[in-house]
Amino acid sequence: EFVARPVGICSMMRLPVQASPEGLDAAFVGVPLDIGTSNRPGARFGPRRIREESVLLRTANPSTGAVPFQFLRVADLGDVNVNLYNLQDSCRLIRAAYQKIVAAGCVPLTLGGDHTITYPILQAIAEKHGPVGLVHVDAHMDTADKALGEKLCHGTPFRRCVDEGLLDCKRVVQIGIRGSSTTLDTYRYSRSQGFRVVLAEDCWLKSLVPLMGEVRQQMGGRPIYISFDIDGLDPAYAPGTGTPEIAGLTPSQALEIIRGCQGLNVVGCDLVEVSPPYDPSGNTALVAANLLFEMLCVLPKVTVV
Amino acid sequence: EFVARPVGICSMMRLPVQASPEGLDAAFVGVPLDIGTSNRPGARFGPRRIREESVLLRTANPSTGAVPFQFLRVADLGDVNVNLYNLQDSCRLIRAAYQKIVAAGCVPLTLGGDHTITYPILQAIAEKHGPVGLVHVDAHMDTADKALGEKLCHGTPFRRCVDEGLLDCKRVVQIGIRGSSTTLDTYRYSRSQGFRVVLAEDCWLKSLVPLMGEVRQQMGGRPIYISFDIDGLDPAYAPGTGTPEIAGLTPSQALEIIRGCQGLNVVGCDLVEVSPPYDPSGNTALVAANLLFEMLCVLPKVTVV
Amino acid sequence: EFVARPVGICSMMRLPVQASPEGLDAAFVGVPLDIGTSNRPGARFGPRRIREESVLLRTANPSTGAVPFQFLRVADLGDVNVNLYNLQDSCRLIRAAYQKIVAAGCVPLTLGGDHTITYPILQAIAEKHGPVGLVHVDAHMDTADKALGEKLCHGTPFRRCVDEGLLDCKRVVQIGIRGSSTTLDTYRYSRSQGFRVVLAEDCWLKSLVPLMGEVRQQMGGRPIYISFDIDGLDPAYAPGTGTPEIAGLTPSQALEIIRGCQGLNVVGCDLVEVSPPYDPSGNTALVAANLLFEMLCVLPKVTVV
Amino acid sequence: EFVARPVGICSMMRLPVQASPEGLDAAFVGVPLDIGTSNRPGARFGPRRIREESVLLRTANPSTGAVPFQFLRVADLGDVNVNLYNLQDSCRLIRAAYQKIVAAGCVPLTLGGDHTITYPILQAIAEKHGPVGLVHVDAHMDTADKALGEKLCHGTPFRRCVDEGLLDCKRVVQIGIRGSSTTLDTYRYSRSQGFRVVLAEDCWLKSLVPLMGEVRQQMGGRPIYISFDIDGLDPAYAPGTGTPEIAGLTPSQALEIIRGCQGLNVVGCDLVEVSPPYDPSGNTALVAANLLFEMLCVLPKVTVV
Amino acid sequence: EFVARPVGICSMMRLPVQASPEGLDAAFVGVPLDIGTSNRPGARFGPRRIREESVLLRTANPSTGAVPFQFLRVADLGDVNVNLYNLQDSCRLIRAAYQKIVAAGCVPLTLGGDHTITYPILQAIAEKHGPVGLVHVDAHMDTADKALGEKLCHGTPFRRCVDEGLLDCKRVVQIGIRGSSTTLDTYRYSRSQGFRVVLAEDCWLKSLVPLMGEVRQQMGGRPIYISFDIDGLDPAYAPGTGTPEIAGLTPSQALEIIRGCQGLNVVGCDLVEVSPPYDPSGNTALVAANLLFEMLCVLPKVTVV
Amino acid sequence: EFVARPVGICSMMRLPVQASPEGLDAAFVGVPLDIGTSNRPGARFGPRRIREESVLLRTANPSTGAVPFQFLRVADLGDVNVNLYNLQDSCRLIRAAYQKIVAAGCVPLTLGGDHTITYPILQAIAEKHGPVGLVHVDAHMDTADKALGEKLCHGTPFRRCVDEGLLDCKRVVQIGIRGSSTTLDTYRYSRSQGFRVVLAEDCWLKSLVPLMGEVRQQMGGRPIYISFDIDGLDPAYAPGTGTPEIAGLTPSQALEIIRGCQGLNVVGCDLVEVSPPYDPSGNTALVAANLLFEMLCVLPKVTVV
Ligand SMILES: [Mn+2]
Ligand SMILES: [Mn+2]
Ligand SMILES: [Mn+2]
Ligand SMILES: [Mn+2]
Ligand SMILES: [Mn+2]
Ligand SMILES: [Mn+2]
Ligand SMILES: [Mn+2]
Ligand SMILES: [Mn+2]
Ligand SMILES: [Mn+2]
Ligand SMILES: [Mn+2]
Ligand SMILES: [Mn+2]
Ligand SMILES: [Mn+2]
Repeated sequence: EFVARPVGICSMMRLPVQASPEGLDAAFVGVPLDIGTSNRPGARFGPRRIREESVLLRTANPSTGAVPFQFLRVADLGDVNVNLYNLQDSCRLIRAAYQKIVAAGCVPLTLGGDHTITYPILQAIAEKHGPVGLVHVDAHMDTADKALGEKLCHGTPFRRCVDEGLLDCKRVVQIGIRGSSTTLDTYRYSRSQGFRVVLAEDCWLKSLVPLMGEVRQQMGGRPIYISFDIDGLDPAYAPGTGTPEIAGLTPSQALEIIRGCQGLNVVGCDLVEVSPPYDPSGNTALVAANLLFEMLCVLPKVTVV
Repeated sequence: EFVARPVGICSMMRLPVQASPEGLDAAFVGVPLDIGTSNRPGARFGPRRIREESVLLRTANPSTGAVPFQFLRVADLGDVNVNLYNLQDSCRLIRAAYQKIVAAGCVPLTLGGDHTITYPILQAIAEKHGPVGLVHVDAHMDTADKALGEKLCHGTPFRRCVDEGLLDCKRVVQIGIRGSSTTLDTYRYSRSQGFRVVLAEDCWLKSLVPLMGEVRQQMGGRPIYISFDIDGLDPAYAPGTGTPEIAGLTPSQALEIIRGCQGLNVVGCDLVEVSPPYDPSGNTALVAANLLFEMLCVLPKVTVV
Repeated sequence: EFVARPVGICSMMRLPVQASPEGLDAAFVGVPLDIGTSNRPGARFGPRRIREESVLLRTANPSTGAVPFQFLRVADLGDVNVNLYNLQDSCRLIRAAYQKIVAAGCVPLTLGGDHTITYPILQAIAEKHGPVGLVHVDAHMDTADKALGEKLCHGTPFRRCVDEGLLDCKRVVQIGIRGSSTTLDTYRYSRSQGFRVVLAEDCWLKSLVPLMGEVRQQMGGRPIYISFDIDGLDPAYAPGTGTPEIAGLTPSQALEIIRGCQGLNVVGCDLVEVSPPYDPSGNTALVAANLLFEMLCVLPKVTVV
Repeated sequence: EFVARPVGICSMMRLPVQASPEGLDAAFVGVPLDIGTSNRPGARFGPRRIREESVLLRTANPSTGAVPFQFLRVADLGDVNVNLYNLQDSCRLIRAAYQKIVAAGCVPLTLGGDHTITYPILQAIAEKHGPVGLVHVDAHMDTADKALGEKLCHGTPFRRCVDEGLLDCKRVVQIGIRGSSTTLDTYRYSRSQGFRVVLAEDCWLKSLVPLMGEVRQQMGGRPIYISFDIDGLDPAYAPGTGTPEIAGLTPSQALEIIRGCQGLNVVGCDLVEVSPPYDPSGNTALVAANLLFEMLCVLPKVTVV
Repeated sequence: EFVARPVGICSMMRLPVQASPEGLDAAFVGVPLDIGTSNRPGARFGPRRIREESVLLRTANPSTGAVPFQFLRVADLGDVNVNLYNLQDSCRLIRAAYQKIVAAGCVPLTLGGDHTITYPILQAIAEKHGPVGLVHVDAHMDTADKALGEKLCHGTPFRRCVDEGLLDCKRVVQIGIRGSSTTLDTYRYSRSQGFRVVLAEDCWLKSLVPLMGEVRQQMGGRPIYISFDIDGLDPAYAPGTGTPEIAGLTPSQALEIIRGCQGLNVVGCDLVEVSPPYDPSGNTALVAANLLFEMLCVLPKVTVV
Repeated sequence: EFVARPVGICSMMRLPVQASPEGLDAAFVGVPLDIGTSNRPGARFGPRRIREESVLLRTANPSTGAVPFQFLRVADLGDVNVNLYNLQDSCRLIRAAYQKIVAAGCVPLTLGGDHTITYPILQAIAEKHGPVGLVHVDAHMDTADKALGEKLCHGTPFRRCVDEGLLDCKRVVQIGIRGSSTTLDTYRYSRSQGFRVVLAEDCWLKSLVPLMGEVRQQMGGRPIYISFDIDGLDPAYAPGTGTPEIAGLTPSQALEIIRGCQGLNVVGCDLVEVSPPYDPSGNTALVAANLLFEMLCVLPKVTVV
């Protein structure tokens, strides 16, 4: 029986809400944290709004042939309880929550939250899987050492990950990078670690299917993580975010990137930096909900017919 | 343990969500219907947004001394599944859903939805309790016989209720009535039925505590229903509604009305006509969430300490 | 036959639109000008949005017993064509348009536009009726001599009117005045002309019925004009305006003022300074539409039953 | 003489408003209905807002060389009066209204309204012209058999049209289709009818001029209808709509599609699903107004110089 | 020479911006911090938006007779640089900044920022003046011991102040308190410290002039601090705030409270919790700007003529 | 030391604010005028909002290799004081202000303001440099002779410039032109003067790098001016503007245009027509801030490393 779209408690894609990851192949998890944000806050309401807009999603993906719920047991695990007044403690809470999820063999698909959260998530992921490859879509590299004197914030997660050996640096690609910076030598760190940095301007007016062919080669069969900062998209498509940069990627390129991960050993995904107060239409959250669904569709167990 | 406000799936007041009313003293129920709306639609998203803003509510009411959850088993029953393309069928679905709730001895507190829904709700209520008294707060009397040729819409619910004998007409009070009308003899129907009509202009700059003393007298110990159309309030306090009328009630008067029902035999309540697209701040829904909590606080089983 | 509210080309109250005032007792006229605005512009869209929201109005006024369309031939004359790049030329165009309206014996009810427009309107009015009494509701006195070196703007209309002898200064009352000013001696000019200045703070928490009794005495039977700047209201009720001032009048006080003009010899009215871009809900325009309808209801030919 | 843009009652392109289609070659008609909407309502205000934003349009189309008002007698016929509480009755009213328009030899250009309305419009069209070809731009195929148990809603119009033989199925093209669906075999119905389905992803980064060359071939000289659901566009360009899908068409592609219909035997057009509450800027309505003007420019009688 | 309102870099009331408090009697200071916020963030942009809207302010206060700039050297000291990722460090930075201001004999008038900031400000104030009296307007008492396990947040500042002996507890009044709470015994802490708690419901429909007469008595001639949380006002007047509570104070009551402090030994003031993203109109910030100006007008050196 | 983004008085890019252009190589200047606007006003707040959003900018441009502050002494000169009630007087004030700036050898980068302002700016520029080349990005040619009977408005600046010999007409390129017009022969004037007109439709889906190669050839080494009307972009990227036209340029094309001016003798630049009330997100102003920074990066003295 069909249910009218405005009807019902808003879980992600109307999935059952449960507290335990046991028995799940994959799960949506919210991390409503935004105190790592440098400019416009509001990402704490990202998970709530993404769940709301996800009512527009249906269960099959005719573009890719994926019908994920035929292959995966999936639920919405609700939100990690965060400490809104203490970023370090929040990171500790997130790590602990994800350790449990990962230990259960459940692949987490995270609804952020600002990008800080990817650091404790990857701590938990790497603890299980070892250093992972990374497909990172973002306007920013997020590899600063510190900001405002702090080691933890949404500009530093991947620096922390490198510091702690959570990434397999030869299998890291950052796509959509752009914008002004404090130095011309802005990509030095990323490149010195061996990351592949794909500038937004190298994506303008192009299909990213060829790029993703190369990325699949690079990633091979070992575990990878997908981290998608919604500000990787042009602000026209995703105005509801905290640190927008002009001249970004398009939603079709976003789909090409995620669909291009089909066949890879994806062990976790996140979609971060949706700040609903800056987009009352809800459309930024709708983009996010769609991209999370596409991530679900490329999980390894999903056989495409 | 405390939970940060942005955390978690949004049920009303973070109550457990369950499908069955069995064992409950009272329950919040959403009815996301707005196809009975004559002007601005959007009330279909009222339940969703009221639940969201209800995260600001805490469990005790220091103003009245009520601690409702000490006396009542309460849950969120989710939403009634409505037929968004057929108002008659929706009314049938609503009536059926409330029959089950009422049969279980559970007092429904409804998150609307446009005011049409009060008609099928009162069908179910009266089926169990017989004709009920009514405390109806609204800018409009909602007693038209027809609108656009139709018997069912948000301007007619109380006419239908009278037609079907669902109301104990000597125990009906309508508070906050105002605005232009199609005829000068606008109150004739209500008054001919024996309703007490309290105009908004008779409330300006006044406490409604004395009025409610009279209302309590009038209602006596028999069952009553509270139906609160958010447009009873001035649009300054509740801009997110479909048919606003200027110079309405204040939130303090709304509190006086609901708190003034303490001690009455309240068998059901609703809060209708919140249209979130017309108030992106969420504050209209916040008023609604508060008023629903206040309704919970005056249910008969709640002993005030 | 009834028409659904969203249906139809938006004229004021769905009245017929016509170009000529001949044969009309009264008419709504738009003046979509805002280049006399000192702060937030947007009042050029006031007439459009007021017409839109006026679809919520019905034809009878049960509060006052007025059924204006039984006594008056009324139409919507559309908008005066203004010169958006030249304030002086616009004033000339407005004056000419109103001369024709007034010459036809038609009482104009104006949808503004910023308050500059009242000056050329009163030129036309006084040309016919001689110096008029004035009921002026506003946060500001609008009696500056110049602003930014200019004689014409929304801060000067009543100074220009006095300069040209358009007002019967002993019959001028300004209600709702408040806010910071450039000098402590702010009311000197108004008072030196014999205006009665009623401060907003003398209205707080009070019915204005007694005041209006005095005003009716003062105005007597000679012609008066009602000029209502929507910023006379508190910004909570009318956020969509260009120079809001806190702690203003309420809509119920606005109704008391206009209804208090019943019985006076009203020869023209305006409602100015609605700036729709600052209130996407449309509710400021809705207040304006209601107040314009109330003005219509107190025109001399409307006999109250 | 020029008129300032904010000046005047808002008819489409400032055209004369008249009730009768007699003597007209083409007419704009509003259908302010949205009770066929599955998700976000608001399209009932589409016609009003499209008319407002159409003040930015001028009369010549330098890109195509069309000066439509030199060849066509055009008016704004106002809105069809709909029954907002009864979708079936609304369809009956729409059909009847369009029968009169079509009978007068007037080509209707419709301002929607949700997509349900295309069904009764095509009933009237086909009654006169026989089964028509269709250029249908949309994110969705709108060929469901039922939704929520109902035969009529914005997801079913073209199924109803096929059921009733209103379409010449070999001359139907659907452009812009995308998004998740309830089944992988989502295009089966359309394709089994012989429709050409052009997926959005086959349009990414491409000019649609070649496609339209093929479409013109396919359509030949017999009557065709253009139905443009604004959600065919990417939500970045048209955020104000009810069921947005990411990664859609661009406005330049929309222009290529409509301009590509030049020379065809266009007997009717609509632009549907503009929901103004979800785009306070008015820009979605502005896109719609432009596309309607472009449709006017490709009507058969418009000779291009 | 006058300057048009939209002209110029936005400092508070167009005052000169300077880094040093030396030689100033009073100064406006921004503290753009919001990571102590429990619900909706955004107060980090409060100072910026308050400065913007302050362009509507003029220099004299005709209601009170104050012309503050005749008596006081005032500047805008800009913003305290805060650590957006670390609340404790931010408190340290704020304290240090205010120590310098206070040491210079300059009275700080603070543009918040969330209410956490009052704690480090009062540390600096009390260091110079000893324990101070407090006029605290708020919907909340902000005297929790901890929230989410943390000692520092916007719900705890006055608890911390009591813990450290910064307040003269017999001279503390909290006005506007309301809303649901976690316990019925909600006022126990405040009252056990000797605070006077004035509930919002004891203010409904009343002038607060009598209350302030009592407060002046209570405060005597020793130093006091005014802390005004904008959520003390009803959300109708101040929608742009993070934790709104219904049925609050009015702007006229706010003026009565501040003006009622005339003659007291005011050594500092703040206006906190303006969250601009939740009020795009800017009117919440406008209220705040006005209240800050009124605070300036009651500083001890301002002689009223 | 780093400063948090929300911290501080908003000057352009946090540059020092100073009144005098002496000693500067370049300066940002605001011109908050919008009374030359034909449709939606609000550009008077463009400079304020662009400054606000410019806090997201950092000092280096890794895409082009420019580090402008290493080569240029730059400040924010604040706003030109305009006469909001008199367009001619405003033009006089602007011209006078720019004469001083230009006389000091300082290159002005203007934050508009509607496009009218380019006329008096070019008067000052040409007085110093003689007739200049022009790179003009816009949806409109802005070469009307008159509008509403006036010579001065945002539709006429370049006609006035030609009339006065301020442009070197053989070195004028207009890019992004599109939309309906009052005549088919719309480009006649521009072309008859020798302007190169590049239609938006000739830019669709194309890199503009080749075009800019030709433009550089055409411009040669003599002085040029860059005038960028934000409505040159598609409204998806810049919704906050007054006369949007669909199917416009993309931000990446905007970057290609400005970066393509590298090496030219740029003597002044402006970015006009940002109307903040129509984009509460601030993103239109963010685009503008970025484009202004890019203009700074192509000034002649900036050597690219
Ligand atoms: Mn990031
Ligand atoms: Mn980012
Ligand atoms: Mn009702
Ligand atoms: Mn109502
Ligand atoms: Mn005024
Ligand atoms: Mn005013
Ligand atoms: Mn459709
Ligand atoms: Mn569709
Ligand atoms: Mn507080
Ligand atoms: Mn508070
Ligand atoms: Mn231009
Ligand atoms: Mn333009």
